[in-house]
Amino acid sequence: MSARTISKTRVMVVNGPNLNLLGFREPAAYGTRSIKDLETLVRDAADLRGVEIDFRQSNHEGVIIDWLHEARTSSSAVILNPAALTHTSIGIRDAVLALDVPVAEVHISNIHARESFRNVSYVSEVADVVIIGAGFFSYVLGLHAVLETLDRRTV
Amino acid sequence: MSARTISKTRVMVVNGPNLNLLGFREPAAYGTRSIKDLETLVRDAADLRGVEIDFRQSNHEGVIIDWLHEARTSSSAVILNPAALTHTSIGIRDAVLALDVPVAEVHISNIHARESFRNVSYVSEVADVVIIGAGFFSYVLGLHAVLETLDRRTV
Amino acid sequence: MSARTISKTRVMVVNGPNLNLLGFREPAAYGTRSIKDLETLVRDAADLRGVEIDFRQSNHEGVIIDWLHEARTSSSAVILNPAALTHTSIGIRDAVLALDVPVAEVHISNIHARESFRNVSYVSEVADVVIIGAGFFSYVLGLHAVLETLDRRTV
Amino acid sequence: MSARTISKTRVMVVNGPNLNLLGFREPAAYGTRSIKDLETLVRDAADLRGVEIDFRQSNHEGVIIDWLHEARTSSSAVILNPAALTHTSIGIRDAVLALDVPVAEVHISNIHARESFRNVSYVSEVADVVIIGAGFFSYVLGLHAVLETLDRRTV
Amino acid sequence: MSARTISKTRVMVVNGPNLNLLGFREPAAYGTRSIKDLETLVRDAADLRGVEIDFRQSNHEGVIIDWLHEARTSSSAVILNPAALTHTSIGIRDAVLALDVPVAEVHISNIHARESFRNVSYVSEVADVVIIGAGFFSYVLGLHAVLETLDRRTV
Amino acid sequence: MSARTISKTRVMVVNGPNLNLLGFREPAAYGTRSIKDLETLVRDAADLRGVEIDFRQSNHEGVIIDWLHEARTSSSAVILNPAALTHTSIGIRDAVLALDVPVAEVHISNIHARESFRNVSYVSEVADVVIIGAGFFSYVLGLHAVLETLDRRTV
Amino acid sequence: MSARTISKTRVMVVNGPNLNLLGFREPAAYGTRSIKDLETLVRDAADLRGVEIDFRQSNHEGVIIDWLHEARTSSSAVILNPAALTHTSIGIRDAVLALDVPVAEVHISNIHARESFRNVSYVSEVADVVIIGAGFFSYVLGLHAVLETLDRRTV
Amino acid sequence: MSARTISKTRVMVVNGPNLNLLGFREPAAYGTRSIKDLETLVRDAADLRGVEIDFRQSNHEGVIIDWLHEARTSSSAVILNPAALTHTSIGIRDAVLALDVPVAEVHISNIHARESFRNVSYVSEVADVVIIGAGFFSYVLGLHAVLETLDRRTV
Amino acid sequence: MSARTISKTRVMVVNGPNLNLLGFREPAAYGTRSIKDLETLVRDAADLRGVEIDFRQSNHEGVIIDWLHEARTSSSAVILNPAALTHTSIGIRDAVLALDVPVAEVHISNIHARESFRNVSYVSEVADVVIIGAGFFSYVLGLHAVLETLDRRTV
Amino acid sequence: MSARTISKTRVMVVNGPNLNLLGFREPAAYGTRSIKDLETLVRDAADLRGVEIDFRQSNHEGVIIDWLHEARTSSSAVILNPAALTHTSIGIRDAVLALDVPVAEVHISNIHARESFRNVSYVSEVADVVIIGAGFFSYVLGLHAVLETLDRRTV
Amino acid sequence: MSARTISKTRVMVVNGPNLNLLGFREPAAYGTRSIKDLETLVRDAADLRGVEIDFRQSNHEGVIIDWLHEARTSSSAVILNPAALTHTSIGIRDAVLALDVPVAEVHISNIHARESFRNVSYVSEVADVVIIGAGFFSYVLGLHAVLETLDRRTV
Amino acid sequence: MSARTISKTRVMVVNGPNLNLLGFREPAAYGTRSIKDLETLVRDAADLRGVEIDFRQSNHEGVIIDWLHEARTSSSAVILNPAALTHTSIGIRDAVLALDVPVAEVHISNIHARESFRNVSYVSEVADVVIIGAGFFSYVLGLHAVLETLDRRTV
Repeated sequence: MSARTISKTRVMVVNGPNLNLLGFREPAAYGTRSIKDLETLVRDAADLRGVEIDFRQSNHEGVIIDWLHEARTSSSAVILNPAALTHTSIGIRDAVLALDVPVAEVHISNIHARESFRNVSYVSEVADVVIIGAGFFSYVLGLHAVLETLDRRTV
Repeated sequence: MSARTISKTRVMVVNGPNLNLLGFREPAAYGTRSIKDLETLVRDAADLRGVEIDFRQSNHEGVIIDWLHEARTSSSAVILNPAALTHTSIGIRDAVLALDVPVAEVHISNIHARESFRNVSYVSEVADVVIIGAGFFSYVLGLHAVLETLDRRTV
Repeated sequence: MSARTISKTRVMVVNGPNLNLLGFREPAAYGTRSIKDLETLVRDAADLRGVEIDFRQSNHEGVIIDWLHEARTSSSAVILNPAALTHTSIGIRDAVLALDVPVAEVHISNIHARESFRNVSYVSEVADVVIIGAGFFSYVLGLHAVLETLDRRTV
Repeated sequence: MSARTISKTRVMVVNGPNLNLLGFREPAAYGTRSIKDLETLVRDAADLRGVEIDFRQSNHEGVIIDWLHEARTSSSAVILNPAALTHTSIGIRDAVLALDVPVAEVHISNIHARESFRNVSYVSEVADVVIIGAGFFSYVLGLHAVLETLDRRTV
Repeated sequence: MSARTISKTRVMVVNGPNLNLLGFREPAAYGTRSIKDLETLVRDAADLRGVEIDFRQSNHEGVIIDWLHEARTSSSAVILNPAALTHTSIGIRDAVLALDVPVAEVHISNIHARESFRNVSYVSEVADVVIIGAGFFSYVLGLHAVLETLDRRTV
Repeated sequence: MSARTISKTRVMVVNGPNLNLLGFREPAAYGTRSIKDLETLVRDAADLRGVEIDFRQSNHEGVIIDWLHEARTSSSAVILNPAALTHTSIGIRDAVLALDVPVAEVHISNIHARESFRNVSYVSEVADVVIIGAGFFSYVLGLHAVLETLDRRTV
Repeated sequence: MSARTISKTRVMVVNGPNLNLLGFREPAAYGTRSIKDLETLVRDAADLRGVEIDFRQSNHEGVIIDWLHEARTSSSAVILNPAALTHTSIGIRDAVLALDVPVAEVHISNIHARESFRNVSYVSEVADVVIIGAGFFSYVLGLHAVLETLDRRTV
Repeated sequence: MSARTISKTRVMVVNGPNLNLLGFREPAAYGTRSIKDLETLVRDAADLRGVEIDFRQSNHEGVIIDWLHEARTSSSAVILNPAALTHTSIGIRDAVLALDVPVAEVHISNIHARESFRNVSYVSEVADVVIIGAGFFSYVLGLHAVLETLDRRTV
Repeated sequence: MSARTISKTRVMVVNGPNLNLLGFREPAAYGTRSIKDLETLVRDAADLRGVEIDFRQSNHEGVIIDWLHEARTSSSAVILNPAALTHTSIGIRDAVLALDVPVAEVHISNIHARESFRNVSYVSEVADVVIIGAGFFSYVLGLHAVLETLDRRTV
Repeated sequence: MSARTISKTRVMVVNGPNLNLLGFREPAAYGTRSIKDLETLVRDAADLRGVEIDFRQSNHEGVIIDWLHEARTSSSAVILNPAALTHTSIGIRDAVLALDVPVAEVHISNIHARESFRNVSYVSEVADVVIIGAGFFSYVLGLHAVLETLDRRTV
Repeated sequence: MSARTISKTRVMVVNGPNLNLLGFREPAAYGTRSIKDLETLVRDAADLRGVEIDFRQSNHEGVIIDWLHEARTSSSAVILNPAALTHTSIGIRDAVLALDVPVAEVHISNIHARESFRNVSYVSEVADVVIIGAGFFSYVLGLHAVLETLDRRTV
Repeated sequence: MSARTISKTRVMVVNGPNLNLLGFREPAAYGTRSIKDLETLVRDAADLRGVEIDFRQSNHEGVIIDWLHEARTSSSAVILNPAALTHTSIGIRDAVLALDVPVAEVHISNIHARESFRNVSYVSEVADVVIIGAGFFSYVLGLHAVLETLDRRTV
């Protein structure tokens, strides 16, 4: 984390396309709780760890890339659910590659149990941790994972 | 259409990247009429059916996803020409999947008679109707198709 | 349409293998109405447009090729649902190629949402219009499409 | 078997292209006995079980589809050797799908030990039983299989 | 030619789907002469060699298979242009395999310079000779080829 | 069967991984009867034919290979359901190749109607007979098949 | 968890081939700590949650399948690192499918950043959660994941 | 350049996603100089040729398409480095196709010496010139290339 | 044949790698006659047609390309058997493309009935005629074919 | 060989599935000599070089992995014929990777001249030497190869 | 450039098969100017930069490899147009790999807009710069590119 | 070795493209010793066996084919390292096929651990022995292998 001074650990949580519809679409795959519920769950888990959360969602690939660039200086770690862009965006992959803070790629549903084009992830190869299929809890696991990586790096 | 009250039937027509150049590029594939001409044609056909048209075009995948989300409450049906995004956007596919109004995917030219990468559509599998190759008239056929679906659902 | 004199516009509707069982097989994909119901629907739509319908069905690829050859002189347009032969018959493709009247390829169910071998069509590349997934109404849309093409060509 | 009344159990045996040449072509793969010998073998086995056999052969895909449609009302079960059409006919697959009587797909030679294009069967996925490589005896095993299925369904 | 007695050499010429339209379709690929012209050309070349020609055309795969079976006893050699069935019919391949007279596969146009699905032939592997792209003259070359093979076998 | 003296015909029935859970897992695919029920069914059928059954199950590929080697001297025929190993074990394939007694490969469910990786069998190419999808009765058919092969070889 | 009575929550941790060499092979991918260190880490995390750990390792696919069957009655959840078998064992996949307790698939290194044959997992599609690349901490995350699933199921 | 009047030659330089991080990410592939350095280099080379430069960068595919449309009337030529979008954006390809000014596709690093998904370019087929691997100097070469094309067209 | 004056028709016959071993290698595929016998056969056939033969063989791709360039001015037609280079040489393909005299590609054995890598020909797509499998007689047929093409062009 | 003290050079020879049947199965591929003959041949060659041989065979992948782990401390080099496991076992590959003594992969028959699935080896990429097709002598060559490597390392 | 003393910068320009026919073949792809014109263009550009040109062409892969070896001591840089060998010669690739002077791969036409087998280049991955589609000017750009690389290395 | 009289055993050693640069290129893969060192090593080993060596190297495929033809009468065995031509030359494969003396294919580096296009060998399928990765010692092993084969054949 070279030339950065962050008083408190801050984790950016980036959500990709259509996740704003959580609870409203495909409940069989994504459950019935909304993205607000997800945010609350993540914030609660973060509070217990004394960590600040910067929670965002966008349907625009370009905006997500901009945010990941922003995270280079604003955040200690990133939790990223690229959603549909997981399988097609090399731009997000390159932006993750440009991050030197820990990155956890998370997925709510089991992407391996869905259409075959969802089995491929451009991000997984460059993420530090990948967590798939634990529902909203995937984000909490992602949080523990990036914090553990930060601890290890500090030591 | 559960908890929605729409006095008049309204159809959102969404056009993808480069369709704003209609009549200016590749006339062999797309003809010489402009997107204004297309809008007029669709509005005329809609007037005959007593239907309101919400006609849009964007080169931004994110904007198109936003619009499809908007259509969930604003429109009774969607006519979608994803253009170049047809073959690459899983995000638009997921947004279509999140719609419970009828969706017609339309294409002006015969995408099967062009480059092989245009043969694949992420949207076709989740659209209600797919119409290909009838020129601008594809949109009129798409209009008839979604209205017929609405009639059938109402009965 | 060079050396042909047809007093009244006549459209040949050609149905491929197993469509005689409509209403009796796979109701989830094809509905419960019979091929008789389909013929009535098409004839009614044709009557409104002042068009004559020549409605046929065969389980034999060779017979369908013979009919398409016959349509070269007997009909102003063709509506073709090649059914299972869509995905395997180059002979029908070549016969369509040999037609200089407008041809609409129609499918009742969404072939893109079924087995992967149904995603490929030898006919689509050479048909003028392709209409997929609108149920029996696909034929009505096909009728409007070929008539619109005839109008355009006449002008 | 819903609205059908069949006094005696009747099994249609359908043989595909070139099987009329049994004993005359490729004896290494198919043996030296003729299709007459095959019919006799099947009839003898059927007599022991008190079952009537309707034995047919055609080189025409369309005819075979017609026969399978006929079997919907005329027969209690079908034994089908689609021969060369096994690997190419979606039409026969759809016709099998439309049957609600038990269907055994049988092959005389081991299709897995021949050219790679013979490894794929459009029918296997929709048949009730598949029997490969037992020579003419494949038909007898197919007979036992469909009768066993009928017994199970009756109970 | 084991147990066959044929006073005069007789060659069956079998033409596949759509070849009855020769001269009427795709003149760029097939020229402007009709199938009658083709028959005359072949008969003239055969007369010079003192050979009888049995010239046929069908759009039905089953009929072509039947004819190839017939050729087993009626003809000394076969010239076969399977046309569209070249690339899809395993049934014709098996029927050729069952012939013990020489078989020349001929094609009028250069199938390698057309769509990729026309590059594959199920028949070539089992034919004695394959001749491609010489226009109608392909049949004359095919005639010379099978006669040369007959001569060689007789010696 | 060269240098072997077996007073009574004995058939080894070899069951692969997870088949010990029959009746307890995936009842939709495998039914609710246990492997004990299966053994009883096979023994009953064998008793009628005067044949001895050596019934085994293992989750270990190596054990199954050992057993197949053992069958070379202990058994007159083998009925083999390699279960999950069907699609991955070249070792079992080689062991079957080393057997000169008849081998029937059997499968309870229709492996062609499941995941695509279950469509490939390393064993089918080298087995004498393959029987798929007849439920537990597949084993009985397999028994008849190997006995018929033994009869034929004896004659 | 039907007919099982477990006084204390017990989690079986199953490690596949070569994991006994942890710390001794490929330290770049797996680090320098041993499997004993891993066991200690998992036990410590389990103690904090009041959970009992049943920690195992085998190089034998068959033994792992046996253990997974045993877990059906002995354990409340499973943490599974199939190691090299991840990419080849359908047998383990089927055994996981037969478990009705939560299963977390875990990997120490990032399998997506290694050889392409390590990108495919037969287990992921049927596991409840997949955790990749967090080093030994993957197991701790897996523990939290299965416990969270148990909590959710209990409620 | 039909109906356009441009007093001075103007070249639009369009940079795709993550190029704003030049010098900050993957120095092994992209060097340590920033995008500002790149802009200076290009402007200096352009000054020597008396050409005006319109230098831009965006992480948004839609913005890049908008800019390419704008270039249709504002610029005499385009230098385009689509970066990550090279390999996935058909929309940018279509926008390039719609340009009738010369287009040079440039890449800083050797895309052929990186991951295999970077070997494919949707743009190369429709660009006038492609320049790969010369570092920042690729842009200067691209400038010379488009100016040479303009010269040739003017003559 | 623009600016060339050739008093007598001259045909270059070009033979590729290993054909100098004819009669000495793989007699099952190529027979027992030598390349001298082949040359005699071709010369005899050419004499009957009043044609001069320029017969060559080389194991060097570069030499064959040089010869094809030479044939542009020295010969009226080319008969080419590229042998092993058929399947790998784009250079020979380009040289054939640069010829405006008729070219017949000939093969002695049936390349479709051998290893799969022999099924692909870089030359076939650009040759005028392709003749496969007629043994040495393939060259005679090739001679008739190019002479017929020359006749047609002259008319 | 770091912290190991081996008085005499010792080479473990590991044989995979079905090799215990050498001389009894597929003599065309493997010859008629038994595994005992093979062991004698290897021991004789080793005696000449003053090397001790530890000769083993197993049909169990897990056992072979265990042995390779054992070789890490017991042996100076390994000769490995994984037989059928060559093409499917990533576990054996990983175990070889964990060895820091020289490893020669040997095959008796030419695996490239057999079924295509035998062309791929998971082990070759990580073995020091690969020797294929020399019959039993492959093991002797493998012995010379590992001894040469040991010599080179010692120097 | 280790042990080499070159008074003046010298660039070897190597042209592959059929480029001697420039201006005589496929003018649509390669223009109407000859290889002499190309040489003049390159020499003129080199004179302006004070560089000596060693211009060569061969249809022989082996000769081109020999020349590239020669360039190791004779030249400061190489401009290489491998033409047809681009897509098939690993030998040229290895020779380029053995060069430690800068290498520019150049192509006159846009190889991406031609047959798919021309899309792959064995050389691109190991060349320093790749320039495609600028006509003869590609060589001039290649010259500037290698000189720029030399300058950068010298500094 | 039919009609050949060779007083002393003579082995031709044929080296393919770029091997003349041994020691000068890619030392990581090929070491630092030159081709002269290699020749000395082989000659020394041959002297011990009383065998004469005919050592050659060429960058020309055609020359290598000529040499292999020459070896048919001049040599008792061949050691062949086709280098880059291993993966592309069917001509060399055919020349090896035409040899009836033993042929050992040897490779210095482990071709399986390099680029994927180096994994395929056209020669391996037809060579008697294949030896990979033993450095220069591969040639010595190859020598032992062909001599052993000669011994076996003589007996």
